[in-house]
Amino acid sequence: MDFATIIGVLVGLSLIFGAIFWQANLQDINPGVFYETISVMIVVGGTLAATAIAFPLKEVRRLLTIIGAVFKGGRVEMGTLVDEIVDMGTVARKGPKDLENALDEVGNPFLKDGLQMVVDGYSVEEIRDILATRVEYREEREMTEANMFKAMGKFAPAFGILGTLIGLVFMLNGMSAEGGGAAMAGRIGRGMATALIPTFYGAFLANLFLLPMAEKLLSQITSKSTQQNMITEGVCLLQMKKHPLIVREKINSFVPPREWKRTEPGGGA
Amino acid sequence: MDFATIIGVLVGLSLIFGAIFWQANLQDINPGVFYETISVMIVVGGTLAATAIAFPLKEVRRLLTIIGAVFKGGRVEMGTLVDEIVDMGTVARKGPKDLENALDEVGNPFLKDGLQMVVDGYSVEEIRDILATRVEYREEREMTEANMFKAMGKFAPAFGILGTLIGLVFMLNGMSAEGGGAAMAGRIGRGMATALIPTFYGAFLANLFLLPMAEKLLSQITSKSTQQNMITEGVCLLQMKKHPLIVREKINSFVPPREWKRTEPGGGA
Amino acid sequence: MDFATIIGVLVGLSLIFGAIFWQANLQDINPGVFYETISVMIVVGGTLAATAIAFPLKEVRRLLTIIGAVFKGGRVEMGTLVDEIVDMGTVARKGPKDLENALDEVGNPFLKDGLQMVVDGYSVEEIRDILATRVEYREEREMTEANMFKAMGKFAPAFGILGTLIGLVFMLNGMSAEGGGAAMAGRIGRGMATALIPTFYGAFLANLFLLPMAEKLLSQITSKSTQQNMITEGVCLLQMKKHPLIVREKINSFVPPREWKRTEPGGGA
Amino acid sequence: MDFATIIGVLVGLSLIFGAIFWQANLQDINPGVFYETISVMIVVGGTLAATAIAFPLKEVRRLLTIIGAVFKGGRVEMGTLVDEIVDMGTVARKGPKDLENALDEVGNPFLKDGLQMVVDGYSVEEIRDILATRVEYREEREMTEANMFKAMGKFAPAFGILGTLIGLVFMLNGMSAEGGGAAMAGRIGRGMATALIPTFYGAFLANLFLLPMAEKLLSQITSKSTQQNMITEGVCLLQMKKHPLIVREKINSFVPPREWKRTEPGGGA
Amino acid sequence: MDFATIIGVLVGLSLIFGAIFWQANLQDINPGVFYETISVMIVVGGTLAATAIAFPLKEVRRLLTIIGAVFKGGRVEMGTLVDEIVDMGTVARKGPKDLENALDEVGNPFLKDGLQMVVDGYSVEEIRDILATRVEYREEREMTEANMFKAMGKFAPAFGILGTLIGLVFMLNGMSAEGGGAAMAGRIGRGMATALIPTFYGAFLANLFLLPMAEKLLSQITSKSTQQNMITEGVCLLQMKKHPLIVREKINSFVPPREWKRTEPGGGA
Repeated sequence: MDFATIIGVLVGLSLIFGAIFWQANLQDINPGVFYETISVMIVVGGTLAATAIAFPLKEVRRLLTIIGAVFKGGRVEMGTLVDEIVDMGTVARKGPKDLENALDEVGNPFLKDGLQMVVDGYSVEEIRDILATRVEYREEREMTEANMFKAMGKFAPAFGILGTLIGLVFMLNGMSAEGGGAAMAGRIGRGMATALIPTFYGAFLANLFLLPMAEKLLSQITSKSTQQNMITEGVCLLQMKKHPLIVREKINSFVPPREWKRTEPGGGA
Repeated sequence: MDFATIIGVLVGLSLIFGAIFWQANLQDINPGVFYETISVMIVVGGTLAATAIAFPLKEVRRLLTIIGAVFKGGRVEMGTLVDEIVDMGTVARKGPKDLENALDEVGNPFLKDGLQMVVDGYSVEEIRDILATRVEYREEREMTEANMFKAMGKFAPAFGILGTLIGLVFMLNGMSAEGGGAAMAGRIGRGMATALIPTFYGAFLANLFLLPMAEKLLSQITSKSTQQNMITEGVCLLQMKKHPLIVREKINSFVPPREWKRTEPGGGA
Repeated sequence: MDFATIIGVLVGLSLIFGAIFWQANLQDINPGVFYETISVMIVVGGTLAATAIAFPLKEVRRLLTIIGAVFKGGRVEMGTLVDEIVDMGTVARKGPKDLENALDEVGNPFLKDGLQMVVDGYSVEEIRDILATRVEYREEREMTEANMFKAMGKFAPAFGILGTLIGLVFMLNGMSAEGGGAAMAGRIGRGMATALIPTFYGAFLANLFLLPMAEKLLSQITSKSTQQNMITEGVCLLQMKKHPLIVREKINSFVPPREWKRTEPGGGA
Repeated sequence: MDFATIIGVLVGLSLIFGAIFWQANLQDINPGVFYETISVMIVVGGTLAATAIAFPLKEVRRLLTIIGAVFKGGRVEMGTLVDEIVDMGTVARKGPKDLENALDEVGNPFLKDGLQMVVDGYSVEEIRDILATRVEYREEREMTEANMFKAMGKFAPAFGILGTLIGLVFMLNGMSAEGGGAAMAGRIGRGMATALIPTFYGAFLANLFLLPMAEKLLSQITSKSTQQNMITEGVCLLQMKKHPLIVREKINSFVPPREWKRTEPGGGA
Repeated sequence: MDFATIIGVLVGLSLIFGAIFWQANLQDINPGVFYETISVMIVVGGTLAATAIAFPLKEVRRLLTIIGAVFKGGRVEMGTLVDEIVDMGTVARKGPKDLENALDEVGNPFLKDGLQMVVDGYSVEEIRDILATRVEYREEREMTEANMFKAMGKFAPAFGILGTLIGLVFMLNGMSAEGGGAAMAGRIGRGMATALIPTFYGAFLANLFLLPMAEKLLSQITSKSTQQNMITEGVCLLQMKKHPLIVREKINSFVPPREWKRTEPGGGA
């Protein structure tokens, strides 16, 4: 569970709504002026419609799944993964049988598939080639998802402005009706306030949800690729039957130095 | 047929027009104020003129064809394609004659051309080289089309603003004529409302049609390239007479794991 | 002659000027309010000054030549070029003498230089290296030209806004002088209208000329590079004395399948 | 300590606050109008909330550490590092024992790790591979940090505008209440002034802190990578037991010519 | 001396100031309203402060030197350089002694260093490697300088807007004080005019100086790299003792065909 995301959403919502209610209270204005059904229709509906046009149905249908993934987070500690690969290296040096028996304990499916290829006797070039292709196209698929959120983060403010333009055209056309300067000022004020609501919705959705989520998806993609590239390197070293000390040294280069552990010289081999 | 696109267009249009008619009804204003011939001329005409300058005639003439392609969609299921390639692998191992006979059943023209080269005895390097060049330049050509929509998506709001500037200059120059504050307010209101219409048109065209379509074209290009890269890899493995199990393993790396099928060990070879 | 460009310019100008004259007629306002010498000075002059600072004199002086190139167009049909290369392949197989004699008929200077190298006995690696370098640096030089138009397309609206700011400062400073509300409203209106003119000029220049031309230059660069890369590949295949059927197959990969022609089996060799 | 950063922050703050107090004094307006608790909540709180959603908790928690790194600076003089590597080259030619003894004097941890690999007998390919991977993934991790600041530099003005929209909606809804034109003008003025405060905060935070810091992080990443690439090259040359004159010539190519020193021919070897 | 730059600056300044004085004269308003000390403080000071935070002190201190370089220009004619390299090729074929003697006449320091390596007997791979690294890191260093101007070109308008926001907050807060509609209109007008001045300064600095200079630095980097890549290629061909005719043919590929000269067959060798 990615608590930062949940805290961010809750804090963001509290701040914006808190500010609105506080100010409403101070000025004795009904905070309900911030809810406007037509504006919700234009901004939320328009954004979803544009997204349905812009992306394959398959991706659009996964929208909620992807939002769930953003909240779930789930970054594996790289240090633990290094240990697991180095341990598997010790097992692999005993023989493919031992490695095959140990496979059930491996949690990471990418590592498991890689080790299975070692057991099946694929060459180092084949393993590297297959795993690198998997990483490349996994990145590409997930990038489409991140791009979908980025695009939504651009559509939302654009439909907000569209809604505001519609509101302004009505307000301005209604300006001819009168009843004295003060009444007119009040009417214009309320009309413009209503016209600004969709822009507010668009900016709110984009900056508190859509754009931060796109950013989080991008950083999840990068971090997953680092992990899988490290696994690829590790599995190739295992297939070459390299000494666990060298395996650790090599795959440690994917990890920030402050997370390195050293294998005890006598323990690893 | 890409239903998401059609639904998106219909929902988007209904929402925007619905919002306009609803609001028009509420405020008792004629919704016809949203139609303005001069604005259509400036925004639609200006965008098309700029596009005709910016892109080769050949591409501009294909505008409707490309829009059709966006609506038609047509993403092949990758899983099915994997099966087809693996099946062809089994056939190819029997001999080039068998492969040639099986060619007629192949639907995908890119796969067909690749298999034809296997039949014609091209080397793996030649096949990879020719097919990779085809993918590269197909991408480049289709990218020009996507860029055309992207550029139109920038021209439309720009001509919208140009139209609004023209409208404002007229409205402001007409401000001197008078007849009492209230009449003037009414006149200014209507003038500004009319001046905003082209900006509304530009934002509407760009965000509900042009930009989402550019995005869809981009994702169609990527997905087609993934498919063709997989075919290229598969055809090269066929030419090398690799075992169907290995072919499947290798080309599966282009496909998301949740779509993998495994060949029954006894069935494939 | 690139008719799309010319039609685009004419249509764009007619639409904008048509809209202005139509509206001027409707509202009985002199369309001459859209001409303002000071604004022309600021927008056109400022854009040219910034361009002179931003780009090498050599490029700036070629401004008109480049605009001419945009209008001239001149995309060779790829299919014809494929035929020419394949024909030369048949000649080249007879011997370098025959190729040398045939050189005079070659129109494309890039192809001619490539074939001359075949005649002069350069190796495939040398030919590929020299021609690839020429393509790379031709692209780089032409990219500078496209960037110049792109930069001008950003400077023009920026100087437009600068001019509007100057106009607003004057209008606002003149606001103190009075003579009754209505007179003031008229004065403010005319002042603001004048202040908006430079923004109009900037948006007009950028969106109807500078940005579309930058885009056209970019697509001309890409299309020329595709052509030259195909020629490079073709000349190398000629030097390797490959069979015309294979030459056609290989260089066809640069061309969209719908433009392919097949050499008659008996005719090419 | 990076004095430029500290001076920049101090000068920037003095200028902005100085301008506010000066103007406040001139117009006899309380400068306290520039402080608004609700606006701080929306802009600072909203930006932090969006950042917590957009980036892994791990990075967000390091926010202050990263700001500290920006202020600390710490660019090593490249010339000194060249000398150190060349000196180590002289030591390395004596034998691995001598190099091992000299390791304690090496300050740069990246150089130290590289030299340790030379002592441990890693091959040139292995050293280059391990060090290059470390540089690549260090860059990637630090890029996430720079991107976090860049994203914050976009969120801050966006939440500023969000706050201004909220303020405008309240101000406009309150416009109906009256008490004579002058009173209304005063009320509208103060309402709009308050509504502009969050936009001011957003622009202030983004342009004086967040965006410059993102830029500084980027240039620190580049400069550190240049340094580490030079070390990688140097360590590989050491492992190949190249003559110190050649080592200096080669690694000098990473350094601007004006910082080159020449090894005295007799001294280095 | 790059006259285009100087002419650009002079013409740009004359146009903007000319427009201001002309309009001031027409409307009988003191052009001095365009000078505002507080605005200069905010825009120029703020931009420099942000730059000091964003870039290493070393670069910031070189600001004036870099501006000097933009004005100095100094693009060597590529054709002359080709001749020089071809001539050196003729000398190099006589022997390293002759080449060493000719070194003093070489003006370009990059070419000189390359030829010195030929004299010193470096291998082609070593020469290419060292020179390519020098080009790569020279580009990187100069890119930092170009980026500094680009960043300043973004900071200047941003601080302009910041200044305008400050001015607006003061103007709006002062709106309550009154003295009849006309007096108020005058006061508001002057207040808004003053508030717009910093935005004017920001747009002026960015579009007439900072952004064009960033663009010029970028094109100088590209043109210098083309030159140095050509020298690298040429020096390698010299080390391989290639015939001057081939040297010219090969390095001509870096130069636009319209600048090619042909070595007389008898003269070069």
